[in-house]
Amino acid sequence: MNSRLLEQAVGELSKLPGIGRRTALRLALHLLTREKEEVRQLADALDRFRTDIKHCSYCNNLSDKDICPICADASRDRSVVCVVEQVGDVMSIENTRQYNGLYHVLGGVISPMQGISPSDLKIDLLLENIQRQGIKEVILAIGTTVEGETTLFYISRRLQQFPDVKVTTIARGIGFGDEIEYADELTIAHAIVNRTALK
Amino acid sequence: MNSRLLEQAVGELSKLPGIGRRTALRLALHLLTREKEEVRQLADALDRFRTDIKHCSYCNNLSDKDICPICADASRDRSVVCVVEQVGDVMSIENTRQYNGLYHVLGGVISPMQGISPSDLKIDLLLENIQRQGIKEVILAIGTTVEGETTLFYISRRLQQFPDVKVTTIARGIGFGDEIEYADELTIAHAIVNRTALK
Repeated sequence: MNSRLLEQAVGELSKLPGIGRRTALRLALHLLTREKEEVRQLADALDRFRTDIKHCSYCNNLSDKDICPICADASRDRSVVCVVEQVGDVMSIENTRQYNGLYHVLGGVISPMQGISPSDLKIDLLLENIQRQGIKEVILAIGTTVEGETTLFYISRRLQQFPDVKVTTIARGIGFGDEIEYADELTIAHAIVNRTALK
Repeated sequence: MNSRLLEQAVGELSKLPGIGRRTALRLALHLLTREKEEVRQLADALDRFRTDIKHCSYCNNLSDKDICPICADASRDRSVVCVVEQVGDVMSIENTRQYNGLYHVLGGVISPMQGISPSDLKIDLLLENIQRQGIKEVILAIGTTVEGETTLFYISRRLQQFPDVKVTTIARGIGFGDEIEYADELTIAHAIVNRTALK
């Protein structure tokens, strides 16, 4: 490339996941068509996001303050906590508007392959919160990968120390809009065995 | 979203072409897994690129200096100029390593629909360069869209004032790896009429 500045911009953009050099070049050339002020806003937003973002000291969710808006919201049901793998999962569940309890973001799943052990996740904080806040139900909303199932099993074992706390997992089955023909055997098996009465 | 900082980062990222809110969110959450210093490098590279980049005062190509490396390169053939629509086209042609002349970047094509008239393009600069530098051949390497053909026609008319300058366009035909079955009629018609002898 002719320009070191362009080369650097393309190099940095192509470090982003799913963005190759071709796309990075297209994005960089697009930025040239925008006002300098607009590009600075983009750059500032990214830098400030990374530098200033905090994690809620109760639930480990992303937050601008020490306590996130969900934990600070007095109208939410403080007797239920929904345990999720990552920040994006909180947004997905919030978007459904079907849940009004608290969350707990683990920050990953147990993965020996990637060197992530239980101590790398916010599991102790979860147990502390349950004890401190009088939680009555823990919903484990963790993905059904091998790592996810391992994490689920590990946490449910640790939760046995609270015999009065109900532990649930999100429902497994055929998704809405999915065809049975294309679902995997495990899912179909689970869906048949755990069939629900229509009436 | 719970965090204004996240909201801003996602908002700015989703202004980029081909990046929707879902992808923007994925990119933003990815940035959280990187070091602060790395994210700052990305932000700086984008801002510096947009703020400090120049256009070569001869050929209008992107450049870190007033004259781009291609125009400044004494080993290039200064009797030929290849006229292209945009900066990316220079890179595409350079990548082939089949061309050793100069370039001229128009900065777009004539498009009444988008309000781009000939005076918005660097056509006068091209004519000046041809006169000043003793150009012997002008290669018009412009895309075959309606706007491209209009621009090609317009420039070739303006070039009639230089009767000694040869004007060519890049070869049209069936691309390598393309199947004739899937080529459009215009291309096939052109390829048949302008067939080349094998020997």
